[in-house]
Amino acid sequence: MEALRLGLAGLGTVGAALVRLLDQHGDDFAARCGRPVRIVAVTARDRAKVRGIDLSGVRWVDDPETLARDPEIDVFVELIGGAGGLAERAVRAALHAGKHVVTANKAMLAASGQDLAEIAEAHGLTLAFEAAVAGAIPIVKTLRETLAGNSVNRIYGILNGTCNYILTRMEAEELDFDTCLREAQRLGYAEADPAFDIEGYDAAHKLAILTSIAFGTQIDAEAIYVEGITSITPADLEAADELGYRLKLLGIASRTETGIEQRVHPAMVPKSSTIASIDGVTNAVAVESDYAGQLVLSGPGAGGNATASSVASDIADIARGIKVPTFGRAARSLAPHQRAAIQTHAGGYYLRLSVYDRPGAFASIATRMAEHGISLESIVQRRREPHADAPELLRPHSPQPVFLITYETTEEAIRAAVNQIFRDGHIASAPQLIRIEPLG
Amino acid sequence: MEALRLGLAGLGTVGAALVRLLDQHGDDFAARCGRPVRIVAVTARDRAKVRGIDLSGVRWVDDPETLARDPEIDVFVELIGGAGGLAERAVRAALHAGKHVVTANKAMLAASGQDLAEIAEAHGLTLAFEAAVAGAIPIVKTLRETLAGNSVNRIYGILNGTCNYILTRMEAEELDFDTCLREAQRLGYAEADPAFDIEGYDAAHKLAILTSIAFGTQIDAEAIYVEGITSITPADLEAADELGYRLKLLGIASRTETGIEQRVHPAMVPKSSTIASIDGVTNAVAVESDYAGQLVLSGPGAGGNATASSVASDIADIARGIKVPTFGRAARSLAPHQRAAIQTHAGGYYLRLSVYDRPGAFASIATRMAEHGISLESIVQRRREPHADAPELLRPHSPQPVFLITYETTEEAIRAAVNQIFRDGHIASAPQLIRIEPLG
Repeated sequence: MEALRLGLAGLGTVGAALVRLLDQHGDDFAARCGRPVRIVAVTARDRAKVRGIDLSGVRWVDDPETLARDPEIDVFVELIGGAGGLAERAVRAALHAGKHVVTANKAMLAASGQDLAEIAEAHGLTLAFEAAVAGAIPIVKTLRETLAGNSVNRIYGILNGTCNYILTRMEAEELDFDTCLREAQRLGYAEADPAFDIEGYDAAHKLAILTSIAFGTQIDAEAIYVEGITSITPADLEAADELGYRLKLLGIASRTETGIEQRVHPAMVPKSSTIASIDGVTNAVAVESDYAGQLVLSGPGAGGNATASSVASDIADIARGIKVPTFGRAARSLAPHQRAAIQTHAGGYYLRLSVYDRPGAFASIATRMAEHGISLESIVQRRREPHADAPELLRPHSPQPVFLITYETTEEAIRAAVNQIFRDGHIASAPQLIRIEPLG
Repeated sequence: MEALRLGLAGLGTVGAALVRLLDQHGDDFAARCGRPVRIVAVTARDRAKVRGIDLSGVRWVDDPETLARDPEIDVFVELIGGAGGLAERAVRAALHAGKHVVTANKAMLAASGQDLAEIAEAHGLTLAFEAAVAGAIPIVKTLRETLAGNSVNRIYGILNGTCNYILTRMEAEELDFDTCLREAQRLGYAEADPAFDIEGYDAAHKLAILTSIAFGTQIDAEAIYVEGITSITPADLEAADELGYRLKLLGIASRTETGIEQRVHPAMVPKSSTIASIDGVTNAVAVESDYAGQLVLSGPGAGGNATASSVASDIADIARGIKVPTFGRAARSLAPHQRAAIQTHAGGYYLRLSVYDRPGAFASIATRMAEHGISLESIVQRRREPHADAPELLRPHSPQPVFLITYETTEEAIRAAVNQIFRDGHIASAPQLIRIEPLG
């Protein structure tokens, strides 16, 4: 059978790994695809850069858009990255020129996935993106193909390796956030500008894509409630441990009566859950559906090799002639995303309050919670050791950390209660509020 | 587009769940498959049985082979079960009549998978079996499609829910094997004749199938070293816990210098591993490959709904025209399985010995280990409390449990050492020998 011809745009870590993968496994890959697969042309920013890969016999093209339209390629592999701009222009050019597209570009999909999918499907082309979400984990294929006979109720996961690495280090070594972030940067797990990861936006892009496939709705990344991990302290991790939880940055999308709830935020997860066992830069995604029950998939969430593995998987599908709609159902049939407001979110909460140690403070807090119909499951007040030893007169008003776990309540109620408590003047700083996620 | 027409053989738990799934999700399933999917004819042992499913408009056929050749069906769904016999005759009839086959029959595949795959591929037909291994977990698709660009080094997992349920109960409640087996039978997790599960043969069938896809070799279930869980005692589970492990029945296939090692046996796995977090009837499979790193997939390993979900996934692939070779590579190109002898297996071992409490016994054991080049990582000797309180004269020779953990050695060396120790007469009964599996 004729070879499938690839045009590869982007020769960074992932692009170079893909070249190596096809070099190393070419024969077996061809056997598995039913035909040879060859990179015939490439483009990248810097032609002279030393990459340690063999590009002999591969044509160099000066810009991605030209490569996208190259008459000798069947598939345009976009590994440039970034929403809008060069990558998206090239992808559009490729689709309009009748080329299948394989991409790892989550930002582009989160912003323009619906439009791109409609163009691809109108032309009978594949737009594949297993590599855009959770690295080597086959979550796109699982949602799109494996769960075809299911209705998904909830999908959640650890979608950002940088955040999970930082939280794992903070917990294991009782280090603060900044120290662990610097360590992540030193090891290449975090960017020089880490905001995109640690503020939760990277996880949100990935969640937006998964939500669309899981629930058959149009991508709506703007509708996601996003909170990062910068406010997490070693005290929170220690309290989580004592209370039977581990702290993870989760992306969560669930079906509710009012619509689809999408959120990214730190969450307390039960220690016995599989998600709680996921450490370091590993990612994991759990899907709860009506027939398949709970599936959990974990694996490397980033890195050149892991991402190249998923790109190769998409290429193999195209080589075999496999055609599945971009988001599992025809793009034009996807329902507009109906957002469930975070205010209606119901669940338990963890609260860390810095309470002034004076008569009546605690009673006042408990009263405010009761006024908003919030029941407390547990309360831990821990006197700071140095203060306990200080002379009596020096410490009556110094703030002490108090940890509360509530029974199920609503986001609206807990926020109202916390605002009131803050206004009452019994706490020294803004309270820490972390949702408890009941996992199977 | 024309409907895909199914002939369904077998209306037990899985068959009935599939009927319900297609009833409940028919429209969405059609949207995802790009065409309607309909059951047009069924067969089962007892037509009169009440199943709580709607079969109006579905033709009844009296025997599976007739259904398999029915001119009005495109796909024969085999949910009868059992190696050889009726199920296999019907599957062969279907393939020869030009019908695709979807089956959940691991015993049939373990015995005749190679032959059936060759017939299917010679006729350009699909023989799909996601439901045959690990219930709802998409491990077949992951190995066959997702990892197309990878070389697998090792695959291992919890492939039998009955055994994992029994071990989980024994550990959590310090109960003995027989009590937990009866409990599993009462709950429907174990058959009236449980031998097939608890002796490890069910897991072996599944492992044989996974090995073929993972390593591109012909199925060889006979080549699997199999040990069940009947010898496991609460003392082993307690010792595992103290030593930082959990005890799981694993199926393991790995690439070695001399061939593919396939084994099913109880194994000590580090508590921090994801596999260790898998409790009850849940299954999990881990795959280690060169580009994708370690992927772990977990989910319900059995049950009508979970199995029906995987059957539906295979049907959806056929409806969409997806064609992938049965075992990932053309069946006629699969290499004969080259077996690595269990004697060459290298790893650490856990030993529980019942040692007569007399002078020189322990020195003799340690000497025998040293003679076979085996180093000990830890030794735990625990006097049984009742004996410790007994009069001195009554207990000098009574056997005491001794727990040993070895550093890496070979199966050959440890077996030789243990046989010698047994012959030396210092131990009261056959030693318990459990492999330690180093997991990521």
